[in-house]
Amino acid sequence: MSIKSEVEAANAAYAADFGEKASLTLPPARGFLILTCMDARLDPAKYAGLAEGDAHVVRNAGGRATDDAIRSLVISHKLLGTREWFVVQHTDCGMLYFDDATMGDLLAGSLETAELTPRGFENASSPGGSAEGRYIKWHTIADQQRAVIEDVTRIRRHPLVDPVVPIYGYVYDVKTGRLNEIVAASQAGQPLR
Amino acid sequence: MSIKSEVEAANAAYAADFGEKASLTLPPARGFLILTCMDARLDPAKYAGLAEGDAHVVRNAGGRATDDAIRSLVISHKLLGTREWFVVQHTDCGMLYFDDATMGDLLAGSLETAELTPRGFENASSPGGSAEGRYIKWHTIADQQRAVIEDVTRIRRHPLVDPVVPIYGYVYDVKTGRLNEIVAASQAGQPLR
Repeated sequence: MSIKSEVEAANAAYAADFGEKASLTLPPARGFLILTCMDARLDPAKYAGLAEGDAHVVRNAGGRATDDAIRSLVISHKLLGTREWFVVQHTDCGMLYFDDATMGDLLAGSLETAELTPRGFENASSPGGSAEGRYIKWHTIADQQRAVIEDVTRIRRHPLVDPVVPIYGYVYDVKTGRLNEIVAASQAGQPLR
Repeated sequence: MSIKSEVEAANAAYAADFGEKASLTLPPARGFLILTCMDARLDPAKYAGLAEGDAHVVRNAGGRATDDAIRSLVISHKLLGTREWFVVQHTDCGMLYFDDATMGDLLAGSLETAELTPRGFENASSPGGSAEGRYIKWHTIADQQRAVIEDVTRIRRHPLVDPVVPIYGYVYDVKTGRLNEIVAASQAGQPLR
């Protein structure tokens, strides 16, 4: 069975037992948001105990506080009433294993999936690359704890972020499933640790 | 119990029974990615049948193909080997109910959560607004099906997207849990419908 058929079959099974989820409304019932990484090993509904309807979940490569993540956070609080935000990055994140120059070079050589060799990522073939990758900031990570602190700080200081929203920072450990706290709370005027 | 305590307690219970998830590796086992909305009612792991380790999940306000979403997609294919992408937006999306001018005005008046009145979103109070919101494109949606088609098209035509990756487009119905197909496949050279 193709991936598309598998996804559609799983969805049909889910919809067949949809029940009272049909009556959920737009604003998150528990009034919070999680910003986390797209990593396949992370399931924020499971690692944080969310049912459908509970909380907003924003995900990108790294769980970074990019401009687009902040767009989503501001909509979440201003229009849909979330009152607490969690930033959850994680161990063994792919963003630790490359930098902007590497990615620019790889994409300039080929758009196809690179191979991970003992020397790092390498192009296996080289048709159809594009230099456009050199003009993008990829938001890679050099130090995971520092990235969480920097991202919480960026959100805290953003001019469109309401100072009453507490922002917590964690690193999720992919070997244990545990959330390890990095930033206990970043409320207005409180120092980051 | 506070939200933070609830999340940490749920996480402790999840980690206590982590089992063989400790051995999952970085590249998604089933080799695909879902781009979807942050909406609290959507749980992509449930609506598409994902276990931890299966697939990348990218989420933002609207499930839009923003520059940051495309950053994540390109990393997903180029470095981590995903070979098929699903764009899943949904009915009753919050992005249908405002526009850039409305959001700019609301934020200029106050950063606090607005009230939804019969006349639309209105500020209940007005301390501490910021005009910065007028300089942001919020990626609101006027027509949901058109947004899916436009976003799949944007991804398809992006210079850093490998033409071999099929891109499927759906609207998830929040009243039924069903994925309704909008774009059957957008492979290189195939017309969009």
